Amino acid sequence: MQKNLLIGQSGGPTAAINATLAGVIQAGIDAEQIGTVYGAINGIKGVLNENFINLSEVFSCKDNIRLLKQTPSAYLGSCRYKLSKSTGDIENIVEILNKNNIGYFCYIGGNDSMDTVYKLKDACAQKGIKVMGVPKTIDNDLVGTDHCPGFGSAAKYIASTIAEITRDTQCYSIESVTIVEIMGRNAGWLTAASALARLTGTTAPDLIYLPEIPFDIDRFLTDVKEKIVERKNIVIAVSEGIKDTNGNYIADQSEIFKEDLFGHSQLGGVGKALETLVKDKYGIKVRSIELNTPQRCAAHISSKTDIEESFMIGAAAVKAALNGETGKMMCYKRVSDKPYKIDVTTMEIDSIANSEKKIPREYITKSGNDVTQELVDYIYPLIQGENEIMYKDGLPMHFIR
Amino acid sequence: MQKNLLIGQSGGPTAAINATLAGVIQAGIDAEQIGTVYGAINGIKGVLNENFINLSEVFSCKDNIRLLKQTPSAYLGSCRYKLSKSTGDIENIVEILNKNNIGYFCYIGGNDSMDTVYKLKDACAQKGIKVMGVPKTIDNDLVGTDHCPGFGSAAKYIASTIAEITRDTQCYSIESVTIVEIMGRNAGWLTAASALARLTGTTAPDLIYLPEIPFDIDRFLTDVKEKIVERKNIVIAVSEGIKDTNGNYIADQSEIFKEDLFGHSQLGGVGKALETLVKDKYGIKVRSIELNTPQRCAAHISSKTDIEESFMIGAAAVKAALNGETGKMMCYKRVSDKPYKIDVTTMEIDSIANSEKKIPREYITKSGNDVTQELVDYIYPLIQGENEIMYKDGLPMHFIR
Repeated sequence: MQKNLLIGQSGGPTAAINATLAGVIQAGIDAEQIGTVYGAINGIKGVLNENFINLSEVFSCKDNIRLLKQTPSAYLGSCRYKLSKSTGDIENIVEILNKNNIGYFCYIGGNDSMDTVYKLKDACAQKGIKVMGVPKTIDNDLVGTDHCPGFGSAAKYIASTIAEITRDTQCYSIESVTIVEIMGRNAGWLTAASALARLTGTTAPDLIYLPEIPFDIDRFLTDVKEKIVERKNIVIAVSEGIKDTNGNYIADQSEIFKEDLFGHSQLGGVGKALETLVKDKYGIKVRSIELNTPQRCAAHISSKTDIEESFMIGAAAVKAALNGETGKMMCYKRVSDKPYKIDVTTMEIDSIANSEKKIPREYITKSGNDVTQELVDYIYPLIQGENEIMYKDGLPMHFIR
Repeated sequence: MQKNLLIGQSGGPTAAINATLAGVIQAGIDAEQIGTVYGAINGIKGVLNENFINLSEVFSCKDNIRLLKQTPSAYLGSCRYKLSKSTGDIENIVEILNKNNIGYFCYIGGNDSMDTVYKLKDACAQKGIKVMGVPKTIDNDLVGTDHCPGFGSAAKYIASTIAEITRDTQCYSIESVTIVEIMGRNAGWLTAASALARLTGTTAPDLIYLPEIPFDIDRFLTDVKEKIVERKNIVIAVSEGIKDTNGNYIADQSEIFKEDLFGHSQLGGVGKALETLVKDKYGIKVRSIELNTPQRCAAHISSKTDIEESFMIGAAAVKAALNGETGKMMCYKRVSDKPYKIDVTTMEIDSIANSEKKIPREYITKSGNDVTQELVDYIYPLIQGENEIMYKDGLPMHFIR
């Protein structure tokens, strides 16, 4: 007997999460064992509210699948909602899934979403429902997988934009510092991706500060001085999540800055704080640029490798569920570096939920203000290839619900 | 007898100023009357320092011309240097030009650069040197030309990015306000370009605030409230240059904000100020995004129309100079809207230098918080077409000096 497939998306959007959705939908439509493919609107909340959309209908036309693949953000809508064992949510969800003849539930998301899969798996098992997690996060901080769908596109955007900003800053002959603030509260993978801008023929970013290394203001100011003397015009990549030796975010310490250095408090993030710091200390031209949400939604410059892999891992999740797997997260396993080659595998969700993968110390230079060639080599294949984006009216086309 | 051609670039960089440079170089290399094509490093300062580069050599290979066309920022370097009649600069420049057998001088830049051309023209005329201005500015605020080279690419980047940000903001079901700060101190053309994001099938930007209309805080808060009630999730485009009724920049008034509304001063721009204002007033989720320098350097998503026109206007400047024209700025003249068609013409520099073209009142809605369809129709052809960008190592290729 055919069972239906339900899909949800959750957590922060990326440029690739819809490619994964497209992969799940396509595999669901193609599978004989699956009746109808449904989507839950706004993640697990949409399941609780029984707010479903018939994706088999919407995507009966293959052109829509292609458009979905190039559309940033979460087509089904997202949520941030942590399941609690005490609220009855889990029982309600299983009842709703059962009532709608759902035999397969794929949940696409980051750490919190994997926690949802983890909490649902036992209750779902009792009803024979297969529940699979499919990773996505630009932060690249999920354990168990070589890298995360969405990271490669964000990395490509960041490296390209740093290269462009570097061209821009170098057009004047005066001393200047440009500070680029990059996403990542606890893991520095995205900030590390800025190093790939050097492949365009520049030394920038001249300094890289990651959340993994305690940030020392005096050391930072010395670093800046040294680089300015050497290169006159420098670009600094800094993670929004850099912390002091006590583990407190630098961006949250406007009061400390105020007393010690600034003379005024500030509302901006860490980039703006460091801008003011360098300006006050050295009196030179400083600009800070927060890359902000385009890091996760600039689908027009997404990585072809990332988008194709994201589609593939979505399709693989359906096949794994059809093969009887459940309570697992789909993973990439890198089987070869040169040539770059990955396999898609599965991993027990228990060992993944609520863990966070940071950059290992050996991927960061001894001085703590740059990354090693090994880290560049790790990221390199993930940003390769350009998608043929369809445009209309001079703008990238998006598929909207 | 052959004379040499000298080229300089000046003012803020754009994604298209190198396409114009490529057009000037190509036309210079191709012209029999021209000996060597030289570039002045860092604009008029490079002329004063006799810091020249032989462009005929560097660009003898056509592949380099193609790469230059897709490279953002000013290949020759830029400067911000206002010529003064009292310093002897003008006499020095003419002497240096004469010494180097320069018969033609093309200066690519914005308002200040046209002022340079204006100041040089009489002294150059005495030596038979033809001096031509070629416009560039993302701000689109030069008079005499239908639009400015560089504006179309910035407009395409802004509209595409607003569309992507809108997808991102709409993935959650909670009330939220996203404020996008766009460049333009006195003219609102770039902010107006955000309206083209609606072509992707969205109401966003839901409100647009331009420097041409005095900004009223109470009216703004009422506008926001109305739109939130209607649409729940809104995106606001705001020019960095919005001013109060007395003509003072809103971004500079942190002290007023502090006493009246904020309770704290701020370092960010106007987007950050309005973010805090809306948060304090309505207690809802607000995010501000400053598009920053990528507006002028995101060459990877430049407008094909803009790049091709920019190349063409550069080449046309050389032809005009060879025809004996001098002391003029190259201009676009729109001869037809549908189909879109322009001619390249010249205009006396006297009537251009030190003027600023703002958005006419009739292009702005009566309520002052949006633009009319006529303005969208004006910008529409300028963002059409995508350039085939060459990539290497997953990143756009740049041609660096």
